[in-house]
Amino acid sequence: MYFGSDNSSPAHPSILNALIAANDGYTSGYGNEEAMNNVTKKLRDLFEAPNASVYLVTTGTAANSLALATLTKPWETIFCHRHSHIEEDECGAPEFYTNGAKLTLVDGKNAKICPKNLLDAINLYSQKEVHNIQNGSLSITNVTEFGTIYSLDEMKTLTDIAKAHNLKTHLDGARFANAMIALDCTPAELTWKSGIDVVSFGATKNGCLGVEAVVFFNPEMAWEFELRRKRGGHLLSKHRMLSAQMQGYLKDDLWIDLARKANSECQKLFQKLKKIQISK
Amino acid sequence: MYFGSDNSSPAHPSILNALIAANDGYTSGYGNEEAMNNVTKKLRDLFEAPNASVYLVTTGTAANSLALATLTKPWETIFCHRHSHIEEDECGAPEFYTNGAKLTLVDGKNAKICPKNLLDAINLYSQKEVHNIQNGSLSITNVTEFGTIYSLDEMKTLTDIAKAHNLKTHLDGARFANAMIALDCTPAELTWKSGIDVVSFGATKNGCLGVEAVVFFNPEMAWEFELRRKRGGHLLSKHRMLSAQMQGYLKDDLWIDLARKANSECQKLFQKLKKIQISK
Amino acid sequence: MYFGSDNSSPAHPSILNALIAANDGYTSGYGNEEAMNNVTKKLRDLFEAPNASVYLVTTGTAANSLALATLTKPWETIFCHRHSHIEEDECGAPEFYTNGAKLTLVDGKNAKICPKNLLDAINLYSQKEVHNIQNGSLSITNVTEFGTIYSLDEMKTLTDIAKAHNLKTHLDGARFANAMIALDCTPAELTWKSGIDVVSFGATKNGCLGVEAVVFFNPEMAWEFELRRKRGGHLLSKHRMLSAQMQGYLKDDLWIDLARKANSECQKLFQKLKKIQISK
Amino acid sequence: MYFGSDNSSPAHPSILNALIAANDGYTSGYGNEEAMNNVTKKLRDLFEAPNASVYLVTTGTAANSLALATLTKPWETIFCHRHSHIEEDECGAPEFYTNGAKLTLVDGKNAKICPKNLLDAINLYSQKEVHNIQNGSLSITNVTEFGTIYSLDEMKTLTDIAKAHNLKTHLDGARFANAMIALDCTPAELTWKSGIDVVSFGATKNGCLGVEAVVFFNPEMAWEFELRRKRGGHLLSKHRMLSAQMQGYLKDDLWIDLARKANSECQKLFQKLKKIQISK
Repeated sequence: MYFGSDNSSPAHPSILNALIAANDGYTSGYGNEEAMNNVTKKLRDLFEAPNASVYLVTTGTAANSLALATLTKPWETIFCHRHSHIEEDECGAPEFYTNGAKLTLVDGKNAKICPKNLLDAINLYSQKEVHNIQNGSLSITNVTEFGTIYSLDEMKTLTDIAKAHNLKTHLDGARFANAMIALDCTPAELTWKSGIDVVSFGATKNGCLGVEAVVFFNPEMAWEFELRRKRGGHLLSKHRMLSAQMQGYLKDDLWIDLARKANSECQKLFQKLKKIQISK
Repeated sequence: MYFGSDNSSPAHPSILNALIAANDGYTSGYGNEEAMNNVTKKLRDLFEAPNASVYLVTTGTAANSLALATLTKPWETIFCHRHSHIEEDECGAPEFYTNGAKLTLVDGKNAKICPKNLLDAINLYSQKEVHNIQNGSLSITNVTEFGTIYSLDEMKTLTDIAKAHNLKTHLDGARFANAMIALDCTPAELTWKSGIDVVSFGATKNGCLGVEAVVFFNPEMAWEFELRRKRGGHLLSKHRMLSAQMQGYLKDDLWIDLARKANSECQKLFQKLKKIQISK
Repeated sequence: MYFGSDNSSPAHPSILNALIAANDGYTSGYGNEEAMNNVTKKLRDLFEAPNASVYLVTTGTAANSLALATLTKPWETIFCHRHSHIEEDECGAPEFYTNGAKLTLVDGKNAKICPKNLLDAINLYSQKEVHNIQNGSLSITNVTEFGTIYSLDEMKTLTDIAKAHNLKTHLDGARFANAMIALDCTPAELTWKSGIDVVSFGATKNGCLGVEAVVFFNPEMAWEFELRRKRGGHLLSKHRMLSAQMQGYLKDDLWIDLARKANSECQKLFQKLKKIQISK
Repeated sequence: MYFGSDNSSPAHPSILNALIAANDGYTSGYGNEEAMNNVTKKLRDLFEAPNASVYLVTTGTAANSLALATLTKPWETIFCHRHSHIEEDECGAPEFYTNGAKLTLVDGKNAKICPKNLLDAINLYSQKEVHNIQNGSLSITNVTEFGTIYSLDEMKTLTDIAKAHNLKTHLDGARFANAMIALDCTPAELTWKSGIDVVSFGATKNGCLGVEAVVFFNPEMAWEFELRRKRGGHLLSKHRMLSAQMQGYLKDDLWIDLARKANSECQKLFQKLKKIQISK
């Protein structure tokens, strides 16, 4: 299965309608508006996480980098796949936001981190002391950059290793809905029930104009994230531009419908390609 | 004159209409879309600067910080007024994006930098060597944070001092249109003809949802800015969300009409307040 | 009283003798050598702080910056006097090591922070939220850069204000011994009994070749400091070059004798200058 | 051949004698002292590079990181061997000093970068644009961390690839003298004649207490390096502590004698080990 870039496609009409509806009258800004309250409540419900902290930013790079910087100290390392977005497509944003944390590249087939390789990489650093960079966090991408999918068991295996070594865990969910549909699971199962501390909950690639949520299941990290977001220039004054999009995205299961449709068409395409290949 | 925060007001309907119109069909992303080409052409014309480089971001903090980081090395200082947005309202974003440049606070009445104070501050550093931070750039805000306005002559006096000491110059134009109307001048006169190298051309406070242009009159700095923007997570994939807003903002002089109206109402309010005070 | 730069003077012969003595045979490096154990023990005794963490670096700039970076987050501010070494003579090292913390300059006569000004500066930031930089730490210099001296009461007044606002406190003690002699107090009184969390205990200006101790009275911060020191390139492999100097410096009260002599000569000079002035 | 850590060994008596001799009377500090002038002259002669800029720091980590930060922008990558000191033993100092440049790990037998792997790694980034980190510099270690040695031809092959892709080049010469003796070549041949822009010329591991030179063959980069060194807290006030060591090290070919002796003893040890193995 492969989920190509949706960057060239238009947003779903409902997202624009939500923007238009939100553009009526005066409201608070900076995330204090009513629409954001609704988004927070809705995402807490969806994730079965009543204490989660929820933030919105405009890009996946910002979501990932700000989340990882909150999890990882400058002298620590982020374990991730060699073919992850944070390594290959963010021009060093994680290094910038963390003030120089290292990305340790872990190999594995089909853009999925191999548990044994992860363990080896962790142990490499664990054996040494002040001279080497320290273990910090694990970042998993699901759906991966190759369009493959980790099963919940596969995710749990990786986060168990992480937790056993005191690593924080991050899920790059740029295509969160697609993974959820493919796995037929709940948002909670795809995140904290699988050992994830923070998720970048993508919406841009699945029908929005430009909005990504960052959800912290541990609210202790929230204030630091807020300061980092502001300091990164990612706190919008007319924040309803983001919260309205996310409200429209979550309303009436639009996000699920869009992902289901995308996955289904992708599957059809895949079947056709297989037939072509077989008939050759 | 005082121009309060417009963060709680809705965007102008034409901005939303521009967004809706742009949301039709597939286009390139990341600023390579047709709408961005139009914006660049339009802003080059407006600024009478055929070689200018034009970029869009979502917030004034991002516009200012990315621009200043491109102008200022980590071991240099940015001269700015004590009551500037970059000092008081960006949670240290300029320090973050420059990797630790210092903001040297210059005093002056009504939030306007006093030329003598600027010269004194520059000379303070110019007298020393490797032990102190180096002179880097000057950032002026017009309309200021107090709602006051530098005349073109006042701006020129400051940038002349800057240029005489090899400082780069930045204009925080979060309320660019309001300043231009109040001064009855052209965009070129308010920027490069007054000695400005880079301007943050604000649109959010004057009717948009969330978009600011950064215009470099020296294209040599452009590529570094592009990398910094991407690295800061400020390059939108569905970039039309920004270019469409800016297109709508610049079309048929909407931006000028909105600023003229805002300035006029502000003036009326000011006259009323004066009468009340006089009648007391 | 004024204590000029001792950078051009040679080291005391006993310091060199200590180096020669330490250069005999194989030892552990990186601070694990016997000489360092002795230094730690000696400084803990001197400071009446059995749990203190003790580190050595080669320069005052490194000592101050590494200490302040451990106390202050990137989005926080360090309150210090306008005429402090960290502001004027370190080429932005504190900004570099903290990844962009701001130095808030507090005025006061004779290079001594005025308590009222400090309180005003703290309150300025305390009134706002995510938009402004946060309160972080206070750095006091005693003997000041002007050669003046805070009394213990004056120090306590400042650190009481700091503690009441959750600020961490740092003492730049580049001329620690001179201050101690002038105040006729103990090392503990000049530091933790006066509310100091971390001290840069200078030795270079008082007879060594190049060594400064950083003493943390709260050992919780120690591991982070160790990583920052290594990451800054300030952990010496043949660390005995530093620990031997410090051993020689502390042995038989050499450090006290040197400071007493320096203060006394300075006093004589001052008296002579006064007579000259009176006789005019 | 293997050159183990010399960190536990004492310095050569001549180095201490040089320190004692230098500790006589008042001199300028901060590198402006007579001893430093001599060191610069001597190293320019040795390297046949009359315009080279020469700086001293106390550690190899500082030498490498400051040099690489001067060569590499934050959004660029440093190509180095997976088993290089900058990757494994500096706690992320290069990432810290560059403000987040990436280290791209290149494989190759015996800790030597394989030219084909280097070319592949460079091409990986060269194919993409603003989304990925940019090509920046190449860092070679000779003698390597495994004790192996690049021939001059092998070095030239790597720097030719680097130059063809506009990479700057750095030599980590922590064991410079050992490499030079083993290759029976001149300092110039081991550096700029082999395409090296900047060398960390190590002395600590070959008999000094703690001093490393950084030599820039392109003096244009010199001022930036000076500011970075100061800002990193690595400019010593009583700088003669470093220049005296280096003077003693270079005098009467001491550095060459020490390396020749070390290499020879290492060779004897290797022969003995081989015999033991053969006799088994």
